[in-house]
Order: sequence, then C-alpha cells, then structure tokens
Amino acid sequence: MLKNLLDSVRNKRPVIHSITNYVTINDVANVLHASGAKPVMSDYIEDIREFTSGSDGLYVNLGMLNERKLESIKAALETANENNLASVLDPVGAGSTSFRTKSARDLISHYHFDAVRGNLSEIKALYENVSGRGVDADDSEDDILLTINNLKALSRQTGSVIVASGKQDIITDGNVVCTVNNGCEVMRRITGTGCMLTALLTAFIAANPENPFEAAVYAVIMMNVAGEKANYRMNESLSGNMTFRNKMIDSVFTLTHEDVERSADYEVFR
Amino acid sequence: MLKNLLDSVRNKRPVIHSITNYVTINDVANVLHASGAKPVMSDYIEDIREFTSGSDGLYVNLGMLNERKLESIKAALETANENNLASVLDPVGAGSTSFRTKSARDLISHYHFDAVRGNLSEIKALYENVSGRGVDADDSEDDILLTINNLKALSRQTGSVIVASGKQDIITDGNVVCTVNNGCEVMRRITGTGCMLTALLTAFIAANPENPFEAAVYAVIMMNVAGEKANYRMNESLSGNMTFRNKMIDSVFTLTHEDVERSADYEVFR
Amino acid sequence: MLKNLLDSVRNKRPVIHSITNYVTINDVANVLHASGAKPVMSDYIEDIREFTSGSDGLYVNLGMLNERKLESIKAALETANENNLASVLDPVGAGSTSFRTKSARDLISHYHFDAVRGNLSEIKALYENVSGRGVDADDSEDDILLTINNLKALSRQTGSVIVASGKQDIITDGNVVCTVNNGCEVMRRITGTGCMLTALLTAFIAANPENPFEAAVYAVIMMNVAGEKANYRMNESLSGNMTFRNKMIDSVFTLTHEDVERSADYEVFR
Repeated sequence: MLKNLLDSVRNKRPVIHSITNYVTINDVANVLHASGAKPVMSDYIEDIREFTSGSDGLYVNLGMLNERKLESIKAALETANENNLASVLDPVGAGSTSFRTKSARDLISHYHFDAVRGNLSEIKALYENVSGRGVDADDSEDDILLTINNLKALSRQTGSVIVASGKQDIITDGNVVCTVNNGCEVMRRITGTGCMLTALLTAFIAANPENPFEAAVYAVIMMNVAGEKANYRMNESLSGNMTFRNKMIDSVFTLTHEDVERSADYEVFR
Repeated sequence: MLKNLLDSVRNKRPVIHSITNYVTINDVANVLHASGAKPVMSDYIEDIREFTSGSDGLYVNLGMLNERKLESIKAALETANENNLASVLDPVGAGSTSFRTKSARDLISHYHFDAVRGNLSEIKALYENVSGRGVDADDSEDDILLTINNLKALSRQTGSVIVASGKQDIITDGNVVCTVNNGCEVMRRITGTGCMLTALLTAFIAANPENPFEAAVYAVIMMNVAGEKANYRMNESLSGNMTFRNKMIDSVFTLTHEDVERSADYEVFR
Repeated sequence: MLKNLLDSVRNKRPVIHSITNYVTINDVANVLHASGAKPVMSDYIEDIREFTSGSDGLYVNLGMLNERKLESIKAALETANENNLASVLDPVGAGSTSFRTKSARDLISHYHFDAVRGNLSEIKALYENVSGRGVDADDSEDDILLTINNLKALSRQTGSVIVASGKQDIITDGNVVCTVNNGCEVMRRITGTGCMLTALLTAFIAANPENPFEAAVYAVIMMNVAGEKANYRMNESLSGNMTFRNKMIDSVFTLTHEDVERSADYEVFR
C-alpha cells in the first residue's frame, strides 16, 4: 500500500461536491472533513454547474432520489466529465425499485465514472436483468468466481473501478481484483456506512487521479479499519451504534498510514 | 411486560419504511438500527409502492410536510393497508398550522393506522375543533380524566392505539389505558425524541402485529428507560444534550429486557 | 460582557423558526436546544406564516437553497418583519454561485435583518461586484482596515449587525467594531460550525432584542469558547472531528457566564 495515497488527500485537501441523500448527508460531510477533504453540497439545478466546476471531485449518491435531483445529477456529471473531474457513483437502491435501477443504468451508460461502489446486490442490478433473480455470492466458490468475472466485465464495459461491498469487499479495474477482509458487523448496524465509504473513495480518487484502482483499495481498507478501531473502543465502553458511528468517523480523522497498513487484510489477484 | 415483545424485534429484524422529516431522519434510521430493525427511506412517489410493499412496517411522520411528500405518504399508506402492514402515524405539528392539522385529520380518516403517537397537544388537534383552545392536561384530576376519555374515544373511532406524550405518557387501545412515568427532562432538550419513539413503536408493532397495544406500551417504556440511562451517564461526565442524544440511542442498542423491566414505572387501568 | 444576555436566552427560551439546509439541520436544532432556545422547522410555503408568527425569531440560512425554499423564505421574512421578530441571515454560498449571490443580495435589499453572519468571503459578496475578485483580508493592516470600513458601510446601509467570520471574527453595528480571537482550527474540520453560530446568534438576538450588537458579540464569543472547550476535551481523549462536534454542542449546553467571560478574548473599537 502506498503511503502517498493518504498523504495526497491530507495535503491536497480536494473539494468534493456531493449530491447525496438527506438521511446521511451530515455524516458524509463530516467523513470528508475527517479525511482532510472539503465537502460542498447542493442539488439545485441552478447552482450545480458552478459548484461542480469549482470542485476536484463529484460524488453522486442515489439514496432518496427523485426526478428533480436526477436532473441536477446529470448536469453535474456533464460538468464533471467535461472538466475531467473525478466522479464516483453510489447506486443506492438499484435492484430495489425500477426507478432506481433504471436511473443507475442510465447514468453509467451516459456518463463516465472513475468508480462505482455499492452493495453486491446493487452492483448486480447494474448488469443483470432485474426481472430475473441473478446469482448471489453464496458460499460456493463457483458463484464467487462467476461474480468476480461479472464485476470485471462490468468494469471493462464502463471503464470504472467497481467496488462491491459484502462479507468481503471486492474491487476490480477489469484486470486486477482485490478482496478486502477488514471491517466488522456493527458497520451494518448504523445508517450511512456505505454512503460514507463512497464519499471517502471519491476523495481518494480526486487526490490521486492517476491511480484510481489503488486509491479505491486504500479507501475501502481505511474505512473498514476505522470501523474495527471504533468497534474496539465501543466494546471497551459498553456503548451502542451511535458511539460506534462517531468513533468510526473519528478514526478516519486520526488514523495514520502505519495504522492502516498494520491492520490491512487483503489479497490481490492478477 | 412480555420479554418476547423485545425478542421479536431483535430476532425478526423488521424492515421499516419511514417517510419522515429531514431534521431527525438520521436519528430515526439509527434508532431503528439500534432496536434491531432495518430502516428503508424514500419519499419519492415513483419509489414508494415498491419500497413499502417490500417492508414489514410503515412509519409516517408529518414533520416538514409538503404537498409532494403528502402524495407519497398517501400512496405508501394505500400499499401498506392493502398488504396489512403495520402502519404508524406521528402527526408532528398538528394544531400548529392548518395544513398540518388538516393533513393529519385527513390521513386518520382515510387510512388505517395501528397506532398514532404525538405530544398531547398534537393528539388533541386530531379530535378538537382547532379554533377552540381545548382542555389541557393540567394538574386537576378532572382534566386528566376528560383527556383520557377523549383519547379512548379517538382510539375507538380510528381503531388505532393512541399514544399521547407529556409529563406522563398515556397509551390506550380504547378500553385499557396505560400511563408511563419513566423518562427525564433532558429528553425535551434534544430534537427528535418523539420522532425516534414513534419509529421504535413502529418496529415493535411490525414485529408483534398480534399485540399492538402491548407492543406500544413496551416501546414507550423502553425509549423512556433509554433516556434515563443516558441521563445517568450524562450526569456522570458533565456532558450536554448531544452526548445525551448519542447515549439514548446507544441505550436502545444495549438495553436488555431485564433492564427495561427493572426500571419500568407504569400503571394499567381497565 | 453582560451576564443577562445569556440569562435571557436560558430564561425566556425563545422559539426560533429556522429555514436552513439539510446538511446541518439536525445540528442547528440541537445547538438551539443546547442554548435554551426552542427550534421550529418548516420550509413549506403553506406552513410558513403560521410557524413564523408563532415564533420569537427567524433564522434564514441559504445552504442548499432552491427556488421553492426561496419563496418560503420570502413569506417568512414578510411575516417576521410585519411582526417585528428578530431575523438573521446566513448567506451560505454567496460569492460561489450567481444564484446564491443574487438571492442573498435580493433578500438584504428587500427585508430587514437584525444581523447577517457569514464567512468573510460570503459577506464580501454582498457588497462587492462579484465579477471582480475583491480585496481579501490578508495580513497587511491596510486591507483589514479597508475590510472593516466596508463592513461598517454594509451595516449602515442595511441596518443589520454584520458578523464576518475568519481568522478573527469581526462584528459591527456600523459604528462600533468588535474583533474576537477565540476559536480553534478544528471548528473548520466539521460541517455546520457557521450554521450553528448563526442559529445561536438568532437565539441571542430574539431574547435580547434591545441589544442586537451586544447579543451578537456574546453569541460569537460563546460559540468560539465552546469550540475551545471541545478541542481541549478532544485532545485529552485522542478523538476526531465527530467527538469535537458533539462536545462543542455539549459545551453550549453546559457553559456558564463565568466560563465564557473567563475565556473571552476580544477587542472593541469605537
């Protein structure tokens, strides 16, 4: 793992324009601050182009999507693509409703994203026929291999680094595949873990545009290590999920490269 | 108090679709997670039916209501009622503006709610002529009896368990009445105590659909006991209302049935 | 500094209607609670007049502004001005996009505000030609004097107390100028410091309508002292920006007048 990936975020302090859902919007802003990046937030069409063009990266999250926000997202993506800004998609709810699935698919087919991160089920909805049920990443090795091949194909087709979160996180640029084993159960007992991870990923890619795959891997490991640290401190003090949430963001603020490297548990397949 | 009411929430992990205000939407999601339930959130009309029909319960909160959200709420309620899902209303602001009062009254007259929870003044706005000032639950016993009779009548008329929060919380299914004395002053010094309680109540009813009254009583006691625990820890550490908020949600995460039972302070009138 | 300025907030408990952005809306509500004030929040045009006229002060924040919200803001301001309620503006994003700049300028020219608080760059966008770059408050004394003269002119022109946040906070009523040196670096590493300060300022002016300048100075000092206290506790416990955020609001809850006075570091120029 390259120390300078984290240093770049903390030194360059990239401005990340985030169009995201109102459930976790405050956590997203604070995790960006924790990383060293600077959040900017607006989803109004009249403001979009100016805010995006003044930023270093664009984070698009489809949680609580509606038609008005979708129009703003498209204008932001147009601006980001024209200006070669880092752009990352979190297709929240793809596969859950037809509007979300259709919107996510439309976006990846019309705009360039440096990375797309979602839960495995959301990522699958991007390449599978939604009316079918698709193959779940169960315990059998065959299914995991099939999933990985599908993720690689999606990455090659879109030109995006693909990050699929699940028991293991799987990251691929279409050729290399990295699986990350860090993280803990409580990360699923708060709202916003995924939204925050995708925000962090946007900051890392914006600060390291020449290495989007390595940047994505680092961000995934760092967020999961932050979760492990928070879990450790939560167990110490008999606390619950809100303390966990606060301590996880705190850990993004305080983690050093050495902390991340010491705890990192991942494999790379070429 | 029945231990299995809490066990059901933690074991069944009901999915609760919440259409709620943006002030406390993050706290609502996290208190649902703390209880063991799983939050889903959308208020866009195109998404509503799919999200609601995939859930175990629907939580409708009128805070920061607008016409667009009201249309989504109606579509969600239609779906919830058709599918016999647990549905709970928090008529935030009823009695404060004519739009809120009218909207709350329209909803309870057109849709079925398993429970309605609000501050006493909001609940009164559901049955009283708003232009009049109504009878407040003051210190005189007569007024409390009158209030209780009105709440029972509202419950019988709507078929909903009614929960009126105040100095004492009053819960009735139209026949039995339960008053709860738990809670503490600081619960009024944060935003979202009521919104979170109604969310918890939805989770309890969704996991215990055969016992909505007992489920509501348990949720009210548990939230108040969580507040007491948070208050105790806050006093220990000279903290303020944000620590209180975090510790109250933490307590929902960590409380055992034995904790709740040991601290419960309530009376039942038949 | 006058002790009764803080006592008034805690004893009168002014109701503050806040029309604010969804990024920090929860923090704004909780910092108002922390101060002793009571938040009310709605941005729907149908509700606006009733909520505003039932309040003691109106807080308008332009973060995540859109056309719909702007209409509501205008209706709220009309009501606030008609009823002589305290009204305060935070022109978030003025100078960043033409919509925000134009909206902020329109509002200050059509409605009365008791105070306007923003970052120095946002305040400058209210009086400077946006297409030019303007004079930044750099290190040279000349520029600071020029800035102060511009802030005084803006205050006299609008009849508003002007608060410009930066390395130093500058507060003026057009004649007297106060500079505040309190605060700490971490206040810029969370979202919402400015939004919360302007909310606190609204509470102070609503509770002390006869002394808007003194009330503004007190609120600015108190928020910055709360930040210093939070920073001290954060350093003690190796925590990050979320702990800082929570402790800063906690400090608003717990600070006494003596605490504020002991730490206050400010100068007054007449």
